[in-house]
Order: sequence, then C-alpha cells, then structure tokens
Amino acid sequence: MDVSDKIDKVPEPTLRRLPWYLSVCRLLKSRGETYVSSTRLSKETNIVASQIAKDLSCVNIVGRTRVGYEIDNLLDVLERFLGFTTLHKAFLFGAGRLGGALLNDKGLKQFGLEVVAAFDTNPKMVGHSVSGIPVYHINDIGTKMRRYNVKIGILTVPIDNAQEVADKMVAWGIKAIWNFTPLRIRVPDDIVVQNTSLYAHLSLMFNRLDSVADE
Amino acid sequence: MDVSDKIDKVPEPTLRRLPWYLSVCRLLKSRGETYVSSTRLSKETNIVASQIAKDLSCVNIVGRTRVGYEIDNLLDVLERFLGFTTLHKAFLFGAGRLGGALLNDKGLKQFGLEVVAAFDTNPKMVGHSVSGIPVYHINDIGTKMRRYNVKIGILTVPIDNAQEVADKMVAWGIKAIWNFTPLRIRVPDDIVVQNTSLYAHLSLMFNRLDSVADE
Repeated sequence: MDVSDKIDKVPEPTLRRLPWYLSVCRLLKSRGETYVSSTRLSKETNIVASQIAKDLSCVNIVGRTRVGYEIDNLLDVLERFLGFTTLHKAFLFGAGRLGGALLNDKGLKQFGLEVVAAFDTNPKMVGHSVSGIPVYHINDIGTKMRRYNVKIGILTVPIDNAQEVADKMVAWGIKAIWNFTPLRIRVPDDIVVQNTSLYAHLSLMFNRLDSVADE
Repeated sequence: MDVSDKIDKVPEPTLRRLPWYLSVCRLLKSRGETYVSSTRLSKETNIVASQIAKDLSCVNIVGRTRVGYEIDNLLDVLERFLGFTTLHKAFLFGAGRLGGALLNDKGLKQFGLEVVAAFDTNPKMVGHSVSGIPVYHINDIGTKMRRYNVKIGILTVPIDNAQEVADKMVAWGIKAIWNFTPLRIRVPDDIVVQNTSLYAHLSLMFNRLDSVADE
C-alpha cells in the first residue's frame, strides 16, 4: 500500500513540522529507543502534544495509549510521506560557489534528491565534473532533458541570469524549481517553486539579534 | 543618522519580502536604471503594488509620484536595514559537508556575515584551515570566544550532536544560532534561532510536485 494513496492534502504548517518529528525519531532510534510518546516529542520539539497528535493523524499515524508511537513505524511513514525514500533526479543550474557546495553535499541523496548533471556557462567548468557530476553548457539543456528523466531544477546562478535560466528550465520541461537565488522568479502557475534564500534568512537573524540587543 | 534609530519593529512578513525588493533593485541598477516604480517592483516580484508601498513605508521609504523610488536610495536603506552593510562575525560549528560548503561561500560576506573560525572534533580537520578559516577543537570554544567578539553561531553538526553543541554555544555567550540541522534545538528565550533546514524545504517541494502531478 502506498502511503500517498490514503492521504489528502496535508496543511503546509503541518508539512513544515513533520521533518522535526522525523529528526527526533532518527535521534532516538540511534540511541536504541523503540517507542516515543507525544509528551517526549513535545519536549524535544517545543510543539504542544495535542498539535503533534493532530499533525501525525494527518499522515494516518495514531499513537497507542501509554506507549506512544512505535519509532520504526513513525520513521517509515514520515520518510515515505516526506519523499525521502524515493530518489528524485535533479539538474543544477549554476555550478559556482553555492551550486558547487550543493554538488558536494552527499546529504541531499539521503533525503531523496540526486543531482545527475549540472549546467554552467563558465568555460573552466563546462566539460568537466564536480564531485563526479558532469557539468554541461546551459545550451545543451534540451539534449540532456531528453536523456535524463528530470523534473526538478536547482537554481544557483547569479541574480542577473536567474529569470532567464528559470525560463529555459520551464521551457524544457522542468516542473519544480528549488530557487536559492534571492530573486523572486516568475513562472507559470503549474510550476512548483521552493525558495531557499540563505541571505533572506540571514537578514531575519540580524534583525532579531538587533531587537534582542535593544531590549 | 542610523536608519535603525527611526524604525520600530517591522512585521516578519514584511521582513521576508524586503530582500525581494533589494534583489530587484540590484538587478535594475546593474542594468543602468535609476528609478523603479512600485508597478515595476510588483511585476518583478508578483507582490501587489499597494503591499510594496506599505512594506517600504515601514522602513521610511516613500516613492515620488510618477517617477517612483530612487534605486540608489532604496538600495542604501534596504541594505542597511537588512544588516548587509555591517560585518557580523560568526563561528561555524561542524566543518563537514554543509559546513565546509558554507566556509567556501564568499557570498555570505557580501551579505554581512564573516565566519572567523570553525569548530569540529574530527582530528583530520582540527588544527587545519578550510578556505583560509581556522578549524579548532570544539573544546577550545571558551578561549576563542574570549579572543573574537562573536555573537552568531552557525550550526552544521550531525543531528545527534546538535543539541549538545547548541547548549555549549549558549553557555559560552552565542546570542544567535543559524541552525542548518533538521533538529529543532531548544534554547533560552533570549537566544535568536534561525532555522534553515534544506531537507525540510526539499520535502515541501517534493510534496507540492506530487500534488501537481496528481491533478
């Protein structure tokens, strides 16, 4: 039975919390524990127990009175639900600083993302490989899209090329863009965009740090 | 006059949108433009013009009828407000895959973050340097805290050490933690935590990609 058959749309706030529960389960399992109560999950995540029970019921997990949740089961359902057990192929656009770092990050594969090729325009990189991943010229995207079955594109180009490269990705059939640029790219409605701007997070942190200092 | 003197708390949704405007301004400036209208900002960011005007008024920027906003002024105020013009020193904890990648990312410095030292326990790394940044043993944190004036710690250790290292950071005087681990760390109320879990973002993207595919 595929877990996704039974689950309707899960609200985004729940989706954002599920990885916290997964991390706690992994941690507890590595310490040899087999059950976790919602009280324990609550203590480890700072999320109220009733919310945790509600979130987990969204993915059809119900705890047992007194013992709580079986960790192996929770891990299994959460990893499958979050998409970490299926390997999703991806192309990376812009193999510079941050892009190169992501190509080096073996952790992504453990979480279901396999970068199969990268694209750049820098002649020093095109034709070579980074961490074993081939770097092609951006103009070769058409040929490579036909060769690999890829739906996800990671966008790590400089902002002045971001929109142009995003347009190319969409034109050639990319369905989801993981946008690391600080630019808000414009795409058709049916394209998924996940924004991860490190610099925006940085400014949030600076701002809150200053507020704390002022108090 | 320091811009922060005049600005009260800016709501978080506004704070999250300001970097979008900054990126558009940088892009337009690089193309030689000097003014930007809120209609143009709206087109480039997909945020309604009235919201943009409201957001910018939070940082005391008011556009002029017909010409709009002066790009240089907008850049100046946004960069200062977002904290990108002051260099904030930081320590990085965990110089492995992702941590090493961040040490390589020269972009952070352009956005106001300077990693001055890294900490790890791996004997292969301790005593060496990564991208010119020295790597010390985590047990040396006390000495190094006294030497550098650091308030920000970047947490890129494996989840099973995350809480322990966070506790150490707080005990030695770190005031803000940029948490890249998928674990929700527990800290005292006066410590700022900015969570940037790449894997959580990944699962959001997978989930939405599946929903699109199902339609």
